[in-house]
Amino acid sequence: MPAGTTGMDMVSMQPCIEACSAAAMAATMCADADAGESMARCASLCASTADVATTTMRMMLRPAGYDASAMSSMMAACVAVGEACAAECEQHASMSEHCRICAQACRAMVDACRSAMSSTA
Amino acid sequence: MPAGTTGMDMVSMQPCIEACSAAAMAATMCADADAGESMARCASLCASTADVATTTMRMMLRPAGYDASAMSSMMAACVAVGEACAAECEQHASMSEHCRICAQACRAMVDACRSAMSSTA
Amino acid sequence: MPAGTTGMDMVSMQPCIEACSAAAMAATMCADADAGESMARCASLCASTADVATTTMRMMLRPAGYDASAMSSMMAACVAVGEACAAECEQHASMSEHCRICAQACRAMVDACRSAMSSTA
Amino acid sequence: MPAGTTGMDMVSMQPCIEACSAAAMAATMCADADAGESMARCASLCASTADVATTTMRMMLRPAGYDASAMSSMMAACVAVGEACAAECEQHASMSEHCRICAQACRAMVDACRSAMSSTA
Repeated sequence: MPAGTTGMDMVSMQPCIEACSAAAMAATMCADADAGESMARCASLCASTADVATTTMRMMLRPAGYDASAMSSMMAACVAVGEACAAECEQHASMSEHCRICAQACRAMVDACRSAMSSTA
Repeated sequence: MPAGTTGMDMVSMQPCIEACSAAAMAATMCADADAGESMARCASLCASTADVATTTMRMMLRPAGYDASAMSSMMAACVAVGEACAAECEQHASMSEHCRICAQACRAMVDACRSAMSSTA
Repeated sequence: MPAGTTGMDMVSMQPCIEACSAAAMAATMCADADAGESMARCASLCASTADVATTTMRMMLRPAGYDASAMSSMMAACVAVGEACAAECEQHASMSEHCRICAQACRAMVDACRSAMSSTA
Repeated sequence: MPAGTTGMDMVSMQPCIEACSAAAMAATMCADADAGESMARCASLCASTADVATTTMRMMLRPAGYDASAMSSMMAACVAVGEACAAECEQHASMSEHCRICAQACRAMVDACRSAMSSTA
């Protein structure tokens, strides 16, 4: 992965890209399982988290159009959605393995986004 | 479309949903055309705008998981990405019809997100 | 929208693009509502239909990379997923408005894909 | 990841899920780089491959709505789009590292989809 000449440090983004990918997968699976357990709020938040994580990851994979303001806003959204999803999933984590895994993946994504944001600033 | 019992006013969201949908289409087409014209930054920003607009629209179509903080962060990201994309496309608008259309759709999306944000607050 | 010089007739694709967009929205909303009603299979099929419809629509908005074999395979997938989703939603249509709307949007998408496929061949 | 009670063997799907995820990332990066090199057809095919790979992956992460016909159609689409993208990227592979990586990831995804399809049948 080439270091961008555009202001985006793709090496420092790498852990964040992987954390978003993992959270997108965990949240997609959690949403799928939730629907059978009448956990409507959890399923809905997980579906949106999967989309937000995928979109944030894709922006990090596109150095050509890097825009500092757009990227930091998207990372802030990823943090907010990831935190809301983790908080919801943590309520079901003791009885539901997919929620425990999803909460963990969301927290890791939130941490990785915060690290990437602080190393960019 | 039922008015949410969850805190999200889907009626006031409707213009924003439509504006995001239109911007997602215009930006997808603009990115496709840009690549043949060596407009790398424009293509990249348009590709991310299409993803962000689609994700924002989907969150508005999911009232069950409405979270005020997550939604307002995502709308702020949509505004930031849409503004960066519009500013880029406006530079090519006089010679490129797809950029003119995309810039217009992005500005309309930014305005609709701002209206939705202010009516929610 | 310019008629493609690439073999894709974007004018004849237009109704299909709109039908995919409408089905993507209806299926996203149906999936969100299903989860609160323990309709796990319906929610899951709707979530996949929303993704497949969005991806098919985006391919139709990208004439530069038009490949006849790739496009007809994706349209066949859109037909198969749309039919599975419509069949599921029709079972709940009498008691659930979102399922009735989603089934209708899926059937319209299936018809539009078939028309576009036959006019392309 | 629980083995589905729904007819989808998620253990045998696992390599396919990972191959789709890798191809989605490689194709997103390749599309981004292509646009600056006037490789319009390559950029467009890569953008669609990223979407198709992501959608196929998500369907495999949703066992609750498993439908054999829908899944095998989507996998066939993933094979067709992945092959078209690989063929295009291979033409530029000797001079463009991102195309070489993307072609490889697409071929691996095509192989993984074929394996999953044959083990499902």
